[in-house]
Amino acid sequence: MAGGPVIALSGGVGGAKLALGLSRLGLGDDLLIVANVGDDFEHLGLNICPDIDSIVYALSGLNDQVKGWGRADEGWRFMEAVAELGGEDWFNLGDRDMAMHVLRTRALASGQSLTEVTAALAGQLGIGCCIVPMSDDPVCTMVHTADGPLAFQHYFVRDRCEPVVTGFEFEGIAEARPQADFMAALKNPDLRAVIITPSNPFVSVDPILELPGVRAALRAASAPIVAVSPIVAGLAIKGPAAKMMTELGMPSTALAVAEHYDGLIDGFVLDESDFALADDIDTLAMRSLIAPTVMQSLEDRIKLAEFVLDAADELAP
Amino acid sequence: MAGGPVIALSGGVGGAKLALGLSRLGLGDDLLIVANVGDDFEHLGLNICPDIDSIVYALSGLNDQVKGWGRADEGWRFMEAVAELGGEDWFNLGDRDMAMHVLRTRALASGQSLTEVTAALAGQLGIGCCIVPMSDDPVCTMVHTADGPLAFQHYFVRDRCEPVVTGFEFEGIAEARPQADFMAALKNPDLRAVIITPSNPFVSVDPILELPGVRAALRAASAPIVAVSPIVAGLAIKGPAAKMMTELGMPSTALAVAEHYDGLIDGFVLDESDFALADDIDTLAMRSLIAPTVMQSLEDRIKLAEFVLDAADELAP
Repeated sequence: MAGGPVIALSGGVGGAKLALGLSRLGLGDDLLIVANVGDDFEHLGLNICPDIDSIVYALSGLNDQVKGWGRADEGWRFMEAVAELGGEDWFNLGDRDMAMHVLRTRALASGQSLTEVTAALAGQLGIGCCIVPMSDDPVCTMVHTADGPLAFQHYFVRDRCEPVVTGFEFEGIAEARPQADFMAALKNPDLRAVIITPSNPFVSVDPILELPGVRAALRAASAPIVAVSPIVAGLAIKGPAAKMMTELGMPSTALAVAEHYDGLIDGFVLDESDFALADDIDTLAMRSLIAPTVMQSLEDRIKLAEFVLDAADELAP
Repeated sequence: MAGGPVIALSGGVGGAKLALGLSRLGLGDDLLIVANVGDDFEHLGLNICPDIDSIVYALSGLNDQVKGWGRADEGWRFMEAVAELGGEDWFNLGDRDMAMHVLRTRALASGQSLTEVTAALAGQLGIGCCIVPMSDDPVCTMVHTADGPLAFQHYFVRDRCEPVVTGFEFEGIAEARPQADFMAALKNPDLRAVIITPSNPFVSVDPILELPGVRAALRAASAPIVAVSPIVAGLAIKGPAAKMMTELGMPSTALAVAEHYDGLIDGFVLDESDFALADDIDTLAMRSLIAPTVMQSLEDRIKLAEFVLDAADELAP
């Protein structure tokens, strides 16, 4: 059962929780965490990569577990001074967090790829598995809303997810090449599993899936593909997924998420509180798998990661 | 006597003290503070202008009066995180201070001139007088030392002024145009006074004087030129001026500073503790002026500024 690459597709905070659990299973550099970059943006001249950073901070233990995002022991003097100087202050950049953005921006400007920069920064923090951007090419998630199109962070942070969502567009996706290690792992005959973490299906996972060649490679791969529901008891653990589903005219349920991934995945992990949906999910082209999916402690993260990887191994042909 | 522009040539902390005093004399925008930019450098991808910032922080009251440089209530989380991520950490960038560098870097990248950026940031902080860079073109002060040439901040901060100085070079100075308002004020027939603040003569004031056309305009101006000694009782109030003078084979005295400016200035303010040097200074082409020049309090700064401006007015033809 063991051996071979394990790919985890991840957005920010929610995905990073399961990624942290997976990183504690002794997979070493067989674990490849592929981060959404559709949320990335340039702000105050800095290259901000919120999902990569959420994963890096979670796996290095630098994340703020109380606040649920950003770094622990964070300070806000930079933001106070930005406001004082009349700069844009709608996006909070912590004093410690700034180091990541400044060093990344400088390295990218000097010609390094986002893959290289991310590997160097993660390595510096002692992270043993591979964290890669879904692409080294720019992709910009636009949220179409009743108020017009908004770049993701403007929708998410500046406008606090208030505009009513009508659809999504991933600018640049047609020209973006999937990151090389990601594509190589997808095509590796020893590929063990692909895990879709409990991130937002529309704005965190879909950008990865929509990269040219990724869906075809996933279909061609014999390795099992298992998704974990980000919706529990009709609610999103974090973020606007449930609100988006309602606005898009679908029920905000784990079943609707399973339907969203239907035809692509082999197994769907739903929370035990949603056990009543299992029969409906089993009518889709996937097997339902029931587990406690709400990750509070590190132990929760590791247990869910073990469950998901075991389930994938059992689903393997 | 009143009316007409007053130009103050300034480096960083020492010059900024007198500049603050001058800014409290009710001159309004008749006061033009011209900042050295030879110490400016790009670091971590950011445009750092130490002398401009020292002046802006002093005049806005944001400076740290205990530490003597940088901003009050400063934090160092950014620097801690830079070190943790393996970035260059020899130059301290405070969390609040970072806002200045980030906003300036972005504005310069968007095509604004350093003059425009500086005016906008100073205006945002409520500063009423004009602070301008000596030039919008880049000039880089190189310190020649027994260990080879060093860019100024590498000599000053990274190597803590330890290498033995053999000379100075202002790279780019031949092509640099003096800032437009500075040049216009120098040529203004109503020019009231030019004040050389107690900054380092070699690395803070000389870069301004060496700009093409500045010495000629100073000689052509009928307005009095008054310098304040940065050397008191053989010591530099701050910085490496005295050490540099010794290494360059000259006595570290106010008299040697006066000789350095001989032929250019009309009056030289020396500290009362150096009164014994007055006769020798009067043998030069200038008048010696004795005052308490050590500025501890805001009142000291204003009193010295009043003294210098009154002296200039008395020296006027």
